[in-house]
Amino acid sequence: MQPTVSDHILFTRGVPATEALPTELLSECMQAVLESPAGKTVLQYGHNGGYLPLRQLLGEQYGVSPDQVLIGNGSLHLQDLISALLIQPGDIVFTEQPSYDRAIKTFRRRGAKVIGIPLELDGIDTTQLEEALTRYTPRFLYLVPDFQNPAGVTTSAEKRQKLAELAQRYGFWLLEDIPYRQLRYSGSSAPLLRELVPERTLTISSYSKLISPGLRVGYVIGPLDFIKQLTALAEDTILAPVLPSQAAVYEFHKRGHFETNLEYLKRLYAPRLAAMIDALKASFPNVAFAEPEGGFFVSVTLPENSNYHNLLIRAKEQGLTLTDGSAFFASPLHEGADSASERFVRLPFCALTPEQITTGIKRLAELVR
Amino acid sequence: MQPTVSDHILFTRGVPATEALPTELLSECMQAVLESPAGKTVLQYGHNGGYLPLRQLLGEQYGVSPDQVLIGNGSLHLQDLISALLIQPGDIVFTEQPSYDRAIKTFRRRGAKVIGIPLELDGIDTTQLEEALTRYTPRFLYLVPDFQNPAGVTTSAEKRQKLAELAQRYGFWLLEDIPYRQLRYSGSSAPLLRELVPERTLTISSYSKLISPGLRVGYVIGPLDFIKQLTALAEDTILAPVLPSQAAVYEFHKRGHFETNLEYLKRLYAPRLAAMIDALKASFPNVAFAEPEGGFFVSVTLPENSNYHNLLIRAKEQGLTLTDGSAFFASPLHEGADSASERFVRLPFCALTPEQITTGIKRLAELVR
Repeated sequence: MQPTVSDHILFTRGVPATEALPTELLSECMQAVLESPAGKTVLQYGHNGGYLPLRQLLGEQYGVSPDQVLIGNGSLHLQDLISALLIQPGDIVFTEQPSYDRAIKTFRRRGAKVIGIPLELDGIDTTQLEEALTRYTPRFLYLVPDFQNPAGVTTSAEKRQKLAELAQRYGFWLLEDIPYRQLRYSGSSAPLLRELVPERTLTISSYSKLISPGLRVGYVIGPLDFIKQLTALAEDTILAPVLPSQAAVYEFHKRGHFETNLEYLKRLYAPRLAAMIDALKASFPNVAFAEPEGGFFVSVTLPENSNYHNLLIRAKEQGLTLTDGSAFFASPLHEGADSASERFVRLPFCALTPEQITTGIKRLAELVR
Repeated sequence: MQPTVSDHILFTRGVPATEALPTELLSECMQAVLESPAGKTVLQYGHNGGYLPLRQLLGEQYGVSPDQVLIGNGSLHLQDLISALLIQPGDIVFTEQPSYDRAIKTFRRRGAKVIGIPLELDGIDTTQLEEALTRYTPRFLYLVPDFQNPAGVTTSAEKRQKLAELAQRYGFWLLEDIPYRQLRYSGSSAPLLRELVPERTLTISSYSKLISPGLRVGYVIGPLDFIKQLTALAEDTILAPVLPSQAAVYEFHKRGHFETNLEYLKRLYAPRLAAMIDALKASFPNVAFAEPEGGFFVSVTLPENSNYHNLLIRAKEQGLTLTDGSAFFASPLHEGADSASERFVRLPFCALTPEQITTGIKRLAELVR
């Protein structure tokens, strides 16, 4: 029997739960901003590097000057601008393998050859990274060190230390993209790369997963000179970012809603993550996968002997929408090393109930049996 | 005697009058959006080509399908994306000479050689344009046909007809940038280029001058295939634009505020334009300049025998801030043809009172005497 439409389960993009979007609180914040003297500021030209009070707040949070913070219209566009500044056509960029599909696409569009370094259960394979560094000098290594998109992996403290050393020794930038870091449901965080090697790190983050994606408020933190150049390019490209939404985010912080909302999100998402891990263990008892302590994603690489042929099409017929796993794979370091890309399945869990997750994983297991 | 700070007059960028920014109405609109079912929509992922109800409304206004409308974070970024799609390094782009400085910069950053075709009091010099077309095939001609930035010139109906013919005959795009068109204080409008040659025209506009710059709501209208490609590039670059501000603009329209606000702006700005024209006629009786019937700018080219040496620095000492006129000039069609760029002064009038305008022009006349 074909499943009904309402029964259809989406394991596609990393979307927050719609019920978690704080419409009323943001409405109050927006109103407070627009009807205060700040209203004229955010509706006029100016604040080309982002709304100054929010830059100051982020500067305090990260222990840097506000001039080391650029706030833009979402972190993807900041990745595009960073790429425009750093990449000359033909330059090499390293990513984790697999990595965030839109990031890979952005670096390629800006002219880079993107090489993926295999990701292990505790972060990038630093042995293979060192080997790659003897062959290539990348402009940067892009990584999502906390609850990685798409694999759910968190980079261990030891590997972060190693990455910091390698970045200094070989002279490349570390782009640490940390939109999920604060969504930790258990355990404790390893240091940021910027705490280990600030002069070589660009830290990118966003409020998309913490408040709302539609606000498109993302930011980058880096060395003063770099942020100055990036801000000039941003101004040339977009003049100024959308200020009312940045001011609403600032007001959301000021009124103490950020912490309350974050706790609410953790309470909402933690059982969903647990349901996903339990369902995978039940349905795929012999498949090893990273068990994240937070974030949006778990992923599995299906065993070689599983029936993954035409999986996306067959899944859709059975009421399950999946993302093409190969989009998360850059060029492999070693020819032919990534036959795994066809067997890679990303499983976002935040916008699904535990029941939907359990049902979805059962369907997946049936399909590949 | 040095003028005091409060006495300082800024003839710099084209900024709306701060008192004209509708903070309370936008606050009400934003609240209505966020607290309605649309609130969840605009705070979530989706609507990557812009907020659909606003695309539908613009489609109706321009007599096109909503799929021919892309709404982005301000029109400057749309110009950047259009350039990314159309320009290969080394391609030729034509602009009016002078033209909008940020547009020239954008086209150059995307790899174009930008050639300026002289602007006359009724629009681009079509004789020189035809001559230029025998030498170069530009990817596009960028122009601001209504109340041009920086010169204040409006392209005559005859010249628009000629431009449409030339675009068809020689096969290049017309980028008509019309952010000021609706700010007409007297007279009547000539047809849009898109009404004459829709298959060759990309129409770009924005709410920056009509509601608020800080909202960063700009849009482009063009042939279906082109907008489809541009929307895909926009999605790859920024994922989606900032939706709450687009929804607030839609609500602003729906509640009838747009027309009321436009009438208010015209009543506010018309006497400022009149003051500017009167002051220039009084202080520069022998200088011919375009007398616009709307928009944000008047400009003058100072006579060759005037004292324009070190003008910006001397002006600042006398309480007058000017923009460097040469930024508005692309490469000349004929070598050495643009000695006028050093004598070009753009005079934005909307954010100044008639008294400030009169005082500012008197100071300018003193300085170049």
